[in-house]
Amino acid sequence: MPKDASFSKLVMGLIGPGLLPRLWGQKLNAAQNDPIKLSHMLLTTRGEVSGTAIADHILTLLEGLSNAKLLAFFAALRDDFEVDQEAVQAALDRVKINDPKGLQALQMAAEPPRQELFRRLNAAPGGTGRLVALRCKLLKALRDDPSLSPIDFDLRHLLRSWFNRGFLMPARIDWNTPAAILEKIIAYEAVHAIDTWDELRTRLAPQDRRCFAFFHPAMPNEPLIFVEVALTQGVTGNIQEILKPARSALAAEAADTAIFYSISNCQAGLAGVSFGAFLIKQVAADLKAELPGLKTFCTLSPVPGLARWAKSQGYLPEGKRPAPETLSSLAADYLVNAKDSAGRPLDPVARFHLGNGAELHRINLDADSSAKGETQSLGVMVNYLYDLDTVEARHEAFAASGTLAVARAIRSQSARAKPHKPEPRTQPE
Amino acid sequence: MPKDASFSKLVMGLIGPGLLPRLWGQKLNAAQNDPIKLSHMLLTTRGEVSGTAIADHILTLLEGLSNAKLLAFFAALRDDFEVDQEAVQAALDRVKINDPKGLQALQMAAEPPRQELFRRLNAAPGGTGRLVALRCKLLKALRDDPSLSPIDFDLRHLLRSWFNRGFLMPARIDWNTPAAILEKIIAYEAVHAIDTWDELRTRLAPQDRRCFAFFHPAMPNEPLIFVEVALTQGVTGNIQEILKPARSALAAEAADTAIFYSISNCQAGLAGVSFGAFLIKQVAADLKAELPGLKTFCTLSPVPGLARWAKSQGYLPEGKRPAPETLSSLAADYLVNAKDSAGRPLDPVARFHLGNGAELHRINLDADSSAKGETQSLGVMVNYLYDLDTVEARHEAFAASGTLAVARAIRSQSARAKPHKPEPRTQPE
Amino acid sequence: MPKDASFSKLVMGLIGPGLLPRLWGQKLNAAQNDPIKLSHMLLTTRGEVSGTAIADHILTLLEGLSNAKLLAFFAALRDDFEVDQEAVQAALDRVKINDPKGLQALQMAAEPPRQELFRRLNAAPGGTGRLVALRCKLLKALRDDPSLSPIDFDLRHLLRSWFNRGFLMPARIDWNTPAAILEKIIAYEAVHAIDTWDELRTRLAPQDRRCFAFFHPAMPNEPLIFVEVALTQGVTGNIQEILKPARSALAAEAADTAIFYSISNCQAGLAGVSFGAFLIKQVAADLKAELPGLKTFCTLSPVPGLARWAKSQGYLPEGKRPAPETLSSLAADYLVNAKDSAGRPLDPVARFHLGNGAELHRINLDADSSAKGETQSLGVMVNYLYDLDTVEARHEAFAASGTLAVARAIRSQSARAKPHKPEPRTQPE
Amino acid sequence: MPKDASFSKLVMGLIGPGLLPRLWGQKLNAAQNDPIKLSHMLLTTRGEVSGTAIADHILTLLEGLSNAKLLAFFAALRDDFEVDQEAVQAALDRVKINDPKGLQALQMAAEPPRQELFRRLNAAPGGTGRLVALRCKLLKALRDDPSLSPIDFDLRHLLRSWFNRGFLMPARIDWNTPAAILEKIIAYEAVHAIDTWDELRTRLAPQDRRCFAFFHPAMPNEPLIFVEVALTQGVTGNIQEILKPARSALAAEAADTAIFYSISNCQAGLAGVSFGAFLIKQVAADLKAELPGLKTFCTLSPVPGLARWAKSQGYLPEGKRPAPETLSSLAADYLVNAKDSAGRPLDPVARFHLGNGAELHRINLDADSSAKGETQSLGVMVNYLYDLDTVEARHEAFAASGTLAVARAIRSQSARAKPHKPEPRTQPE
Repeated sequence: MPKDASFSKLVMGLIGPGLLPRLWGQKLNAAQNDPIKLSHMLLTTRGEVSGTAIADHILTLLEGLSNAKLLAFFAALRDDFEVDQEAVQAALDRVKINDPKGLQALQMAAEPPRQELFRRLNAAPGGTGRLVALRCKLLKALRDDPSLSPIDFDLRHLLRSWFNRGFLMPARIDWNTPAAILEKIIAYEAVHAIDTWDELRTRLAPQDRRCFAFFHPAMPNEPLIFVEVALTQGVTGNIQEILKPARSALAAEAADTAIFYSISNCQAGLAGVSFGAFLIKQVAADLKAELPGLKTFCTLSPVPGLARWAKSQGYLPEGKRPAPETLSSLAADYLVNAKDSAGRPLDPVARFHLGNGAELHRINLDADSSAKGETQSLGVMVNYLYDLDTVEARHEAFAASGTLAVARAIRSQSARAKPHKPEPRTQPE
Repeated sequence: MPKDASFSKLVMGLIGPGLLPRLWGQKLNAAQNDPIKLSHMLLTTRGEVSGTAIADHILTLLEGLSNAKLLAFFAALRDDFEVDQEAVQAALDRVKINDPKGLQALQMAAEPPRQELFRRLNAAPGGTGRLVALRCKLLKALRDDPSLSPIDFDLRHLLRSWFNRGFLMPARIDWNTPAAILEKIIAYEAVHAIDTWDELRTRLAPQDRRCFAFFHPAMPNEPLIFVEVALTQGVTGNIQEILKPARSALAAEAADTAIFYSISNCQAGLAGVSFGAFLIKQVAADLKAELPGLKTFCTLSPVPGLARWAKSQGYLPEGKRPAPETLSSLAADYLVNAKDSAGRPLDPVARFHLGNGAELHRINLDADSSAKGETQSLGVMVNYLYDLDTVEARHEAFAASGTLAVARAIRSQSARAKPHKPEPRTQPE
Repeated sequence: MPKDASFSKLVMGLIGPGLLPRLWGQKLNAAQNDPIKLSHMLLTTRGEVSGTAIADHILTLLEGLSNAKLLAFFAALRDDFEVDQEAVQAALDRVKINDPKGLQALQMAAEPPRQELFRRLNAAPGGTGRLVALRCKLLKALRDDPSLSPIDFDLRHLLRSWFNRGFLMPARIDWNTPAAILEKIIAYEAVHAIDTWDELRTRLAPQDRRCFAFFHPAMPNEPLIFVEVALTQGVTGNIQEILKPARSALAAEAADTAIFYSISNCQAGLAGVSFGAFLIKQVAADLKAELPGLKTFCTLSPVPGLARWAKSQGYLPEGKRPAPETLSSLAADYLVNAKDSAGRPLDPVARFHLGNGAELHRINLDADSSAKGETQSLGVMVNYLYDLDTVEARHEAFAASGTLAVARAIRSQSARAKPHKPEPRTQPE
Repeated sequence: MPKDASFSKLVMGLIGPGLLPRLWGQKLNAAQNDPIKLSHMLLTTRGEVSGTAIADHILTLLEGLSNAKLLAFFAALRDDFEVDQEAVQAALDRVKINDPKGLQALQMAAEPPRQELFRRLNAAPGGTGRLVALRCKLLKALRDDPSLSPIDFDLRHLLRSWFNRGFLMPARIDWNTPAAILEKIIAYEAVHAIDTWDELRTRLAPQDRRCFAFFHPAMPNEPLIFVEVALTQGVTGNIQEILKPARSALAAEAADTAIFYSISNCQAGLAGVSFGAFLIKQVAADLKAELPGLKTFCTLSPVPGLARWAKSQGYLPEGKRPAPETLSSLAADYLVNAKDSAGRPLDPVARFHLGNGAELHRINLDADSSAKGETQSLGVMVNYLYDLDTVEARHEAFAASGTLAVARAIRSQSARAKPHKPEPRTQPE
C-alpha cells in the first residue's frame, strides 16, 4: 500500500469523475455545484466511498469560490447548521424528568450539526490541512462580520481536540530536512526574516544552531510552529551577534546556554490552538537530555510594543531615542507596569513568555539594529528565562493572580520613579 | 529529537519523581493517591509540564486499581463530572433572549467536564492507547452497571473524533513487518486462529497472500483492525483450501479474485468506532490499483449464528446435520429472512457485510471442517461480494430501507417453501 | 546502534587522542607526523582498533599536507610500495616448475603493497570518500608528473571494484530530498548551471521534471552522478524551452518523450570509473516502468567542440556564425566525420552517447542561446536517441568496429559535398 | 525509483525473455545453456544491459546445475580462466628493460581472468549474495578436490575487498526487527540453539538483552554475523542462568557487565573473510557509549575441544567426569598449554578470543548443563575478557609471538603439576 495512499485519491483515480453522478443520480446532479446542498447531503450519506468523494468535492468547490460566494456559504453554515433550540428545550425537559437518555439527548441537541459536517469533511484527502486553510479564510471574514463567530467556535473546538498535545510530533529541522519543508521555514519565519537559502543554512547547519518544529500526523509536510535556537557560552543579548553570517561555530558540547531567538507560528488557520509554550518547554527538556552541559534556557526577544507605548506616553517628543539610562528604565517600566484591559502585560511577547512562566531576566540596549528592531523596539531586546524547576509554578501564579516573574534588578528599576519625561506639554504659552 | 520522544517521558526522566510534590506542594501531596481528586486538579491546572505529569500519574493509578476501586472511580466520573443542569437552563435562557454568546454558552454547559478530562489525559505518554485500554475496562463494567453509559457516551464521542477516517494510516503487514507487531496479529486473529509463527508465515509470506491493517499515529505499534486476503483464480468456497500449509503459491499477477477470508478487530476498547467497512473498501481499491488483473473482490465468511438458529427453529432434531439440499435451503432462509429486533439480518457477519453494501453471493457447504466451523456454522461458509460499482448504492439502500443485496439463486432458494422440518414434536406418544 | 555510527569515530571518542601513543608507544611516537612511516606501520599492524585509528590519522595528515609534501608522499607511494621484481621472478620460477602454490604467489607478488594500503585506509571513518578525494589530488599531480601513474593504476583498480555496478544505489532527487544533497546538485551541475534555489526548484518540483542519481553505500550523502530529465510531448530541440522558469507543467502521464537534458559527474576523484551509460539506461528503464506512455528516450546535448573545430577548419573566417543551411551541414560533418587519433568521434559528448549505443538523431539550430552555447556549440544542440531495443547491439558495434548509429537524414547530409568554405585563401594573387 | 529496484530485474521485466537471443543472435543461442561459453562471452561483452542479463543467466544456470556439472564448471574456471604464464614472462621482461608500462602489464597479466568474471557476475540482481552462495558450494567441492583452490583464492580475494570493514553496516537486532531477518537469526544461531520464536523473544525483547549484527549494503536482508549480549551485574559464569525463560529483567542502566554469550557466523560462503573480532569490539564500544555504567566486557564461551582432548590424554578413563578440582586444572592446562601444529591454542574458541587480544579470565565448572555442553566441554565454560585498553596490544603480542593473556590464577593453576591421571594403564594384572 503506497505510503501516502489516501483512500479517496485512489477511489477517485479508479472510479473517475463519473462516480458521484453514478452514486447519487439526479439528486446529486442537481446539487453538484452547490456546496450548501452538498453539505446537507454529506450529513446524511452513509457510504464511505461516496462520503469521502463528496467531502473532497465540497472542499474543492469551496477552494475555488469567490469571496462573496464564500461569505454566503459561511452564512449558511451559521444559520442552517445551527442548534435547534426547541430540540434542546425538549432534551432538557427529558433530563428534568430523569429520562435516563436525557443527558445524552441534550448533548447531541446542543452540538450544532456543522461540527459533524467538519468531521466528515476531514475524511477528504488532505482534509485536515484543508480545514485549517478554510478556517484561515473564516478568520478573515470574521473581522468584518462578527456574527460568523459561532462557526469558528465549533471549528476551533474540533481543531483543539485534533491538535491535542498527545498528537503533536516534534521534529528537528536541519540541513538534512527536505527542501519542501525548508522552503516553508523561510516563508513562515516571522521574527527575523530569512532572505536566502544561504542565510537559512547559517541557521540550520552549524553545530551550535538548532531548529525544532511540531508536526501533526495528518499534515506531515506542514510545520505547525518552529523555534530557532543558538547554543552559546553565557547569555547573549544581541541578535546581530547571533545572526552574523561569518562565525566560527561553537562545539555543541561546549555550550552552557540555549538561546531561543525566534519562534514562529506557521498556520494562521490554527490561531487560538496554541503550541508555543509546549514547544519551548519540550525543546528545553530535549536539549538538556542531549547536552547535559546546558544550564540556562532563555529567549532573546523583541519588545515590539515599546516604541508605540513610549510615544503614546509622551516619552519620545521628537521621535528621538532617549539616552541609554532612560531607555532602560522606560523598557523596565513598560514591561512590568504597562497592562492591557485584562490586566495582563501590554507587550504581546512579554505576555506570551511571562504567561508561560518564564522570568523577565535581562533588558539589552542596542540589541537589534535592524530597521524593524529600531522602529518597534527602539533597539531593545529582552531575555526571558525558562527555568525548568520554577516555570510551572510561575505559570500557575501568573494565571491565578497575574503575578509576573521579574529579575530583582529589573523589578527595582521599574519600581523607581518614572523616568523624567521631557515635559513636552509645559510650554503652551 | 529522538523519534518517539514523548515530552512527559523526558520531563519525568529529567525532573524525577519529586516533580509533582515540588510543583504542587501540600495540595498535591494530599491528593496524590486519589485519582478523583487528581482529576479535579487536572481540570484546573494550566501548566504543560505539570498537566502532563498529573495525567500520567492518574492513568498509572487507574491501571493499578482493584476492580472495586475502579468502579468507584467510574461512579465519580459519572456523578461528579456530569453536566450541570442549571447551567444548561441558564444558558438556554440566554439563547432565548438572543444573547449573542448564548449558544456557545449552551454548548459548553451541555458538554460534561469529563470530556475535557479525557482530552487532558490524552496528553500523557501513550495517552491515546491508555484511554482505549481504560474504555475496555469501562465496557466490561457497563455490562453489570448500565448507569455508567454516560461515561462511555463521552469517551466514544471523543474516540470517534480522534479516530476519524482522515487520521487512519493503512499499512501492509507482511513477513518484513517487525515481530513486535506480528505477535499482535497472532494474538488478535479472531476468525481462524493462528497457532504458530510458521502458520503466520504461510499467511504473510507467499506472494498470493496479503494482509493489511489500519494504524493510528498515536498508537503506532498497535494495529486497530486487519484483514487477510488470498489472491486466487476464481472464487474459492473452502477455508481449508486457503489455509493449507503446503501449497504452491500463485503469481500475484495471475490472480483474478481477491478473497477476504478473515477480518479481526484488535482493540476491544474501540468497539463502536468502526473501521471494518472502510478497510475492506480501501484494500479492494488498493489491490485493484496494484494488480489490474483482479476482477472480483469477495469474502469467505462463516455463518456463526446458523447452528443456534436452526436448533431454535427445530431443524436439528438430534443435533444431526441435515442433508446438503436441506442445509443449503436452511442457510439461505436464515441469511435472507431471519432478522433481529431492529429488522436487520440476525447473523452478525451477514449484518456487517450486507450492511456495508456487499452482496450475498454464494453459499458453500462443507466449507469449514474445523470444530468451530462445524459447531457454529454447520460447515457452511458464505462469499459476500464487494462490487466497487454498486457497493455504495446498496449500502445506502440497506441503511434507508433494509434492502439486502442477494444473488438471484439464493434469493429464489430462500423464497421457496421452508425446508421440511423433521416434525420433532409429533411423536410424543 | 546509531545508524551512521562508525566504529572508529566511537572508538576515538571513547579512548581519546591518547590512544595511539598508548597502543604503540615509542615506535608510533617517532612516526606520528610522518604519513609514510605510518603507512608502513599500517601494513603490518593486526589490530582492528589500532588499524582504524592509524588509517584515520594518516588520512587526516594527508588532508592537511602542503602540496610539496603531498608530492613527496606520492613519490614514496610510487617507489616504496611498488612490486618487488625479484619476488615476481621467484614466483614465476615456482610456476614454471609446477609448484602448486606458484600462481598464487605470483599474484601476490605482482600486486603492489599500496593496494593493500588503500584497502586498509578505507576502514577509516568516511574512508571511501576520503580516498576518492585523495585520488582527485593525485590526478592533478599526475598532469605534471606522469611517473605517478602506477599509483593511479592501483587506486583506480580498487575503486572500480568497489564501485562495481552491483553496489550502486539509484535514487530519485526531488524537492523532498534533503537540502544537504540538493546543494551538491547545484554545485556539481556541469552542463547548464543552476544559479539559485528557485532555479533548482523549477528543475525538481514540477511533475514533468525528474532527476536521478547514483549513490554508493559508503558515501551516502554524496551523489556520484546525476541526470536531469524533462517529460515532454514530442522531442524538444531547444534548451531554453526546457529551462524557462514560467511554464505550466505537463501531467506526467500525458508525456510520450523523456529528454535527458543534463548529465553531470560529481566526483572528479572517480574519473575513469564510469557510470553514465548505466545511469541513462537504468533511468530509461525505470521511467518506462512507471510511465508506460513514454515511447521515446533521448538527450538534448551540446556540441561543445563544434566552434573550435569549425574555426580550425577555416569555416568561420571572421568568427561569424554561418548561415543555417551551412551550419547544419557543418555540424553533421563534424559529428559524423571528425575523429580523434583513436578513430572515435572528436566531439566528447558525441563520443559518449554514440559510444553508449545511442543514435545521432536530430541536429537543432538556434537551440541554446546562452553565452556558453553560442561560444562552444554555435547555438547547436543534438538529440541522441536511446532505443532500448537496439542500444546494446549498437554499443557493441561501436566498440567492435567504430560504427556510428546516425539517422538517415544526418548521414546523407554529412556525406554530401563539404559545405562550401568561404575560400579565404583564394585572394593572394 | 522503487527502493530495491535492480536494473536487470527491470530490464528483464521490460524486455522479456527474448532479450538475449535478440541481442546476441546465433552466437548466444549456441551458448545459451552452457555456463562456460557464456562466461567467455561475458568477459568480452561491453553492453550494460546485455552484460547484466548474461550475468544473471549464468548465475541462474549455475544455481540449477547438478553436482557433477558444477564440478565441470569449476574445473573450467580453474583451467580456462587461469593466468597465461607466457604473458607474465613477457610482461616481466618488459619490466626488466624498464618499459614504463611494464609493471601494469605485469599486474594485469598476473590476475587470472576469472577475477574479472566474478566482478561482472556481481552486477546481476542480487549478485553479491549469489556469489557468496556459489563460494559455499566451491568450498564443499574443495574438500574433495584441492586443485580447485586457485578459484577460491581469487574469489576470497574479491570478497575480502568488497566486505572491507569500511563497508560493513552494524545494526541492532531486536523485537522490532522484521520477521524475515529474525527467522535467519533462529536458523543461524550456532552456539546455543533457538528452538522457538518465544525463545527468540526472551533473547531480544528484555531490556537487559541485546543482539547486534553486521550487514553488507549489497545483501541488506542477510545478516553476516551476529552476537548476543546479556547485561548483568557482575560476571556470570553459567549459561542456563542467562537463557532461563522466566527472569525479571534488569534495568539496562543498572548493569555493570556485558556478557557476549553467543557469536555466530551466518554465511558459510564468507569463511575466511572474518568479522568476528571487529564486531565484538564495535559492540563493546557502542554499548559503552550508550551505557556508561558498563565496566566489564567479557564472553561466556564453551570449551568445545576439552572432552576430546582430555580423552586423548587419558584423563577420562571411563568417560567419567573428573572431580571439580581436577577438572579445573585440566581445563586450565588444556586452554593454556595445548597447542595446534602452528603453535596456537588447540581449542578453536580460545584461539579466536585469545587471538583477538582478550584475556582468559575465568573458568566456570557446571556452567552448561546442556547435552552438547556436557559432551564437548564437560560442563565447563570460560569468560574471556575484552579490556578496551589492552585488547589491541595483546592482539599484537599474540600475533607477533603467540603470547596469551591469561589471568594470574589460571596461569598458576596451569603451570602447576599436571593433574594426577588415574593411571588406567597400570592395572593390567
